[in-house]
Amino acid sequence: MTEEILHHSSQQHRIVALLSDFGGKDHYVAAMKGAILSRNPHVTLVDISHAVEPMNVAEAGFLLWAAYRSFPEGTLFLAVVDPGVGTSRPVLILETPQYLFLAPDNGLLDFICSQERTLKAFTLEMEKAKPLLPAERSHTFHGRDIFAPVIGALSKGYPLADIATERTPPHPARKFLSLTEQAQTPAILHIDTFGNIITNILLSSSGEGKENISAVSLAGKRITTWVDTYANAAEGIPSLLVGSTGLVEIAIRNDSAASILGVTTKSHMNVEWKK
Amino acid sequence: MTEEILHHSSQQHRIVALLSDFGGKDHYVAAMKGAILSRNPHVTLVDISHAVEPMNVAEAGFLLWAAYRSFPEGTLFLAVVDPGVGTSRPVLILETPQYLFLAPDNGLLDFICSQERTLKAFTLEMEKAKPLLPAERSHTFHGRDIFAPVIGALSKGYPLADIATERTPPHPARKFLSLTEQAQTPAILHIDTFGNIITNILLSSSGEGKENISAVSLAGKRITTWVDTYANAAEGIPSLLVGSTGLVEIAIRNDSAASILGVTTKSHMNVEWKK
Amino acid sequence: MTEEILHHSSQQHRIVALLSDFGGKDHYVAAMKGAILSRNPHVTLVDISHAVEPMNVAEAGFLLWAAYRSFPEGTLFLAVVDPGVGTSRPVLILETPQYLFLAPDNGLLDFICSQERTLKAFTLEMEKAKPLLPAERSHTFHGRDIFAPVIGALSKGYPLADIATERTPPHPARKFLSLTEQAQTPAILHIDTFGNIITNILLSSSGEGKENISAVSLAGKRITTWVDTYANAAEGIPSLLVGSTGLVEIAIRNDSAASILGVTTKSHMNVEWKK
Repeated sequence: MTEEILHHSSQQHRIVALLSDFGGKDHYVAAMKGAILSRNPHVTLVDISHAVEPMNVAEAGFLLWAAYRSFPEGTLFLAVVDPGVGTSRPVLILETPQYLFLAPDNGLLDFICSQERTLKAFTLEMEKAKPLLPAERSHTFHGRDIFAPVIGALSKGYPLADIATERTPPHPARKFLSLTEQAQTPAILHIDTFGNIITNILLSSSGEGKENISAVSLAGKRITTWVDTYANAAEGIPSLLVGSTGLVEIAIRNDSAASILGVTTKSHMNVEWKK
Repeated sequence: MTEEILHHSSQQHRIVALLSDFGGKDHYVAAMKGAILSRNPHVTLVDISHAVEPMNVAEAGFLLWAAYRSFPEGTLFLAVVDPGVGTSRPVLILETPQYLFLAPDNGLLDFICSQERTLKAFTLEMEKAKPLLPAERSHTFHGRDIFAPVIGALSKGYPLADIATERTPPHPARKFLSLTEQAQTPAILHIDTFGNIITNILLSSSGEGKENISAVSLAGKRITTWVDTYANAAEGIPSLLVGSTGLVEIAIRNDSAASILGVTTKSHMNVEWKK
Repeated sequence: MTEEILHHSSQQHRIVALLSDFGGKDHYVAAMKGAILSRNPHVTLVDISHAVEPMNVAEAGFLLWAAYRSFPEGTLFLAVVDPGVGTSRPVLILETPQYLFLAPDNGLLDFICSQERTLKAFTLEMEKAKPLLPAERSHTFHGRDIFAPVIGALSKGYPLADIATERTPPHPARKFLSLTEQAQTPAILHIDTFGNIITNILLSSSGEGKENISAVSLAGKRITTWVDTYANAAEGIPSLLVGSTGLVEIAIRNDSAASILGVTTKSHMNVEWKK
């Protein structure tokens, strides 16, 4: 996020979007929000999800990727799924022309790195960040004691260069499969609330490219029928459709495709390309 | 919502209240919020519920009705439970003297129509709304690509007349049962978190009218004892009380009446009136 | 909260943090928020948790205690777990130098009373508060009809003295166990989302004092190994650690200690002190 953007969007309306595996029952999300608001009470907090499966870094990375482009320029994203909390695992900061991301350096931001062409990466320097942090910091809750104060300060325009060192951006394995990138293993990225099975086959969200796919197979079924939207599928029959992020989904009208097919994110999947 | 109200409540504190069946785990709610904030970063977003049972339009309608009158004048409500997403089902906008509602035209707003004496109804005109919408729109996520940009624009004072055509308001079947409206079928509208069974018998919330009811029968029990509040019920005995929206409830003190009686919203119910 | 603090933090950024057992599905939380915003649309609302087990006053008290010190000075806390709603149970207001708390007088604020050295306590006077309240008030939803309007008014600077009478602060039994306070019964206060078992043994969050503990026993296991953080525990072995609020926890790396050990908040626990 350039200086100009930081100045352009006034502090009063700066948005911080939050993602974690902290769940909705405990005090963890609220403690993190309180710590952010203690640094910058003018911020608008938006929850992406706190119901990520505990420790499931890949799921968190997918959900962040699926949501972030809907947010206005200048939004800061804080994502905390952190099995290595309290160890020496570094903290990663990514800056794109529009957004800033803060997360443990454990692969959570790989989807973002895979998506964004222009990005700068930084490592948080604990020594330099200390003036922003509480004197006594828990080993088990960096979300409250490190991530929250840092994102709060950055949301107020605190200079990133004063607390972080630039590094080479991560170059993760490509996350998505397409006509031109078939080396990638076909996989299920996510099962949503409705039971839709979201694959890693990426088309444009208008559906261009689906003419190159003959079939997707999983759970012993070879699925070949494309529909535009859920309501146009035949009842009880798994159909292919292009979901709202451009990923191919398998859906069953008014039902949970994942339950009916007995599929999880670990299930094997296959794709047949026309050429 | 009249022009005066739109001008009276400043844009800075305009509230948008959200209801959906998107659940708390996926990115869908956040993507919708990001899209609203992209149109109007000054808006205050409040969640009514995103835990509506998938596709359960009636439950969504009830929850919206139960919540909306607590919100300040000028609040806009966006409700998305939309089994017909991507088809040609229209988008309905309702304006009352105090509020604005935006939802798929699938019965979700029937409770509001049943409650409000003075309302205007409009159909969104996709052709006219296009300047507000992203060029590429998903067939499966109108919440993000149509509803959110429209409510964001309306919350900033964008003229409704520029994107919608007035139509006759829906005249749904009456939703509630009362001494003077006994033609309606007795029914269970909702089971709440505590297991309280909320019926469609509508009294005033101060309880006037309960003297006209001798008994409510369900699950083979004839329930005749009225209490003022949960703590005044006898332990283990189902009691009648007038809930916070004026609807008659069946409750069991410190326990779930629905679990103990084995009742769901589909269960049969009967009412005996004194005259 | 002194007059100076009330004036110091401007109304525009006053934070109200909410805790209840209302759940995430029903309209209850939204109705309460709507009623607060109807009194003060400038307030920033933050959820602590609404997933407290129905009627579990002790769990609510713990979660409030665990979260509140992360919030900025001037925050108001509204906690509604209220089995006695509609009866004559009083409403308790606590003021500390930094915060204000509003809750039913049923023990919910005992953790706060146990923590705070300097506090003033007040009883809400219903007769005096009436001008702030709706004319028709439900017997079953004081969250919406009494607590929300009162906290909304207080957040705008309405004088507490005009609606409440000072009383002696509650002196609850001490909630925590420590080297110098061993009279207290060892107990499990909370099981968190990750399955970590949070005990009532309070050390400093930097871990000073753990050298005085030889072992914690529960579920037939005598646990003696201390680790700094979850990732430093051996796989499959229950370990002791000092959690983020200074309470001793039993955790199993990458797993749910509570599930594996078969422990609930009701389970018996024992502590061996070195002296």
